[in-house]
Amino acid sequence: MKIVVIGASGHVGSAVAEALSMRHEVIAASRATEPAVDVTDDVSIAGFLDRVGEVDAIVSCVGSVPFKPLAELGRDDYVSAFTGKVLSQLDLVRLGASSVRDGGSITLTSGILAREPIVTGTAAAMANGAVESFVISAATELPRGIRLNIVSPTVLLEATGYHSTFPGFVPVSGAIVAQSYVKSVEGAQTGQIFTID
Amino acid sequence: MKIVVIGASGHVGSAVAEALSMRHEVIAASRATEPAVDVTDDVSIAGFLDRVGEVDAIVSCVGSVPFKPLAELGRDDYVSAFTGKVLSQLDLVRLGASSVRDGGSITLTSGILAREPIVTGTAAAMANGAVESFVISAATELPRGIRLNIVSPTVLLEATGYHSTFPGFVPVSGAIVAQSYVKSVEGAQTGQIFTID
Repeated sequence: MKIVVIGASGHVGSAVAEALSMRHEVIAASRATEPAVDVTDDVSIAGFLDRVGEVDAIVSCVGSVPFKPLAELGRDDYVSAFTGKVLSQLDLVRLGASSVRDGGSITLTSGILAREPIVTGTAAAMANGAVESFVISAATELPRGIRLNIVSPTVLLEATGYHSTFPGFVPVSGAIVAQSYVKSVEGAQTGQIFTID
Repeated sequence: MKIVVIGASGHVGSAVAEALSMRHEVIAASRATEPAVDVTDDVSIAGFLDRVGEVDAIVSCVGSVPFKPLAELGRDDYVSAFTGKVLSQLDLVRLGASSVRDGGSITLTSGILAREPIVTGTAAAMANGAVESFVISAATELPRGIRLNIVSPTVLLEATGYHSTFPGFVPVSGAIVAQSYVKSVEGAQTGQIFTID
């Protein structure tokens, strides 16, 4: 398969690109690659997809959100979380579906904060909940047998800077998390949230 | 208790205002009341809260979202759903918490599309999922024992215009749905999603 992995410079994205590379042609993309893609800009997304051409799967591992105590989260922070992790991934589905072959797939990324709280995690929670419910619904209306799933992982073993903000959450390696993306790309499911707790 | 019900002109809001009025002083508010409140405008929210003063509970029954087939949902529709149902309710919590007495409550509204799909429901699903996960997280950080819950109802018996878009969903009366808001306002729970399927 020809697979685009967007957000390939992050902990999750790099592990996913590595896992999928074993059996597939992977185009690992980020703001710093050639061709580059800035997922917060729909013109950049459209231009990138145009350069890449038809693919079997699009995998999104993007999602920058602000982490702050609730009392410090302002309107701009919620808008930033929406733009960075929600609208960006909605645009990838909206603009990307026509680049995906019949029966291909799109896989997005949310996170455990959709269902479990941490202090400073409210903007991230909002964004994760938004994309998860979007997937449940959008999967039913995608054309040509295109499947759509989302991976919702706990904190990553490699993301050591976050470990202290996730007390009692058992970190999982990027290699294990990547297997849920492999399941989404190579499997039969659609409209599913693959949780990794 | 002194309770503000915002969005009191809708099917849900009017039933909630009626149910709470039996035992409490209810200030039913919408864009057309005096004082008025436009929840899509944070300046209007702040001015309204200032006029109303200290309350025991804030109940939000707002949430305008576009219903369209997935292929017709554009970037503006997702932004509109975010502004109308997500950011509006996040602002009510952010700006409203300081108006709520110690141990009081805030109750928001989502909907069944957060967890079950219908055709044309993807923007609504996204908005519902966002506010539900927001509540799970924000409830843990609110000060002074203020509780925060969300009611997630199925299609309303009184909203006959929507019945054909919800095939096989058994409509529930506003009076029954209103009891979940009574539970949130008078009960002990916090961080809960009260689902009504």
